[in-house]
Amino acid sequence: MSSQGIVLFGHGARDPRWAEPFERLAARLRGAGESAPHVSLAFLELMTPPLDAAVAAQVAAGCTRVTVVPVFFGQGGHVRRDLPQLVDACRAAHPGVEIRCATAVGEDDGVLDAIARYCVDQLGSDA
Amino acid sequence: MSSQGIVLFGHGARDPRWAEPFERLAARLRGAGESAPHVSLAFLELMTPPLDAAVAAQVAAGCTRVTVVPVFFGQGGHVRRDLPQLVDACRAAHPGVEIRCATAVGEDDGVLDAIARYCVDQLGSDA
Repeated sequence: MSSQGIVLFGHGARDPRWAEPFERLAARLRGAGESAPHVSLAFLELMTPPLDAAVAAQVAAGCTRVTVVPVFFGQGGHVRRDLPQLVDACRAAHPGVEIRCATAVGEDDGVLDAIARYCVDQLGSDA
Repeated sequence: MSSQGIVLFGHGARDPRWAEPFERLAARLRGAGESAPHVSLAFLELMTPPLDAAVAAQVAAGCTRVTVVPVFFGQGGHVRRDLPQLVDACRAAHPGVEIRCATAVGEDDGVLDAIARYCVDQLGSDA
C-alpha cells in the first residue's frame, strides 16, 4: 500500500446518516488498488475521530505524507481559522511527516460542475 | 425565461466568503440561456435570504414550479428535519405553485465522483 494518506475532514453532525456520503467517498478512494492511499475520515465536531487522532493513526500505519482534504463547500471560518490550527498541531506532533492541507472541495470547478449537473437533472425530472 | 425556479439551499456561515461556491454555482446555472431557470440562493441560518423569502421572490417573478436543492453533503438533521418543515411552509404560502425538494447534492454519485477526483489530484501534486 502507498505511504500516502488522505484524511477527509468534515464538519460532523448529530445524525450518523449525515456521514454516509463521506463513507462512500472513502470507499471510492480505497478502491484504487495497490496505489490506493490510506483513507481516513475526521470531523471537526459532533462525530469522531478528530483530526489529530486520524492523522496519528495514519502515521502509525506508516504514512510519510498525509493530505487533509476539507470536505466543505466554502472556505468559511472552520476551514480558514479552525482547520489550520488543527493541522499545525498535527505537524508539531509528527515532525517527520509531511502534512498538507488542500482547499475545500466546493471550491473545485469539477465539483461545482457536477453539482450544477445534478441541479439541472432535478429540474428535468417529473418524478 | 423559464417558469421554473431553482433554489440552492445551504447552511450559511458567519464568513461571507463561505458563500462564494454557491454564487459560482448559481452563475453556472443561470448561464443556460433562454431555458435557464430562475436561480436563487437561500440559507438555513447566519446568511440571508431564508428559504421562504427566496421562494416568494421566485413566485413573484412568475415561477410555477420551484425546486429546492439542498447543497449539503449529507442528509442530517438540517435536511431531514428542518428543511421539510420550511418547504411545507412555502407550499402552504403558495398553494398554486409546485414546490419540490431534491436529495442533498452530496448523495449524488456524480458529485461524489468529482470529489474523489479532486482528492486524488491533491495527492498527485507536489505543490
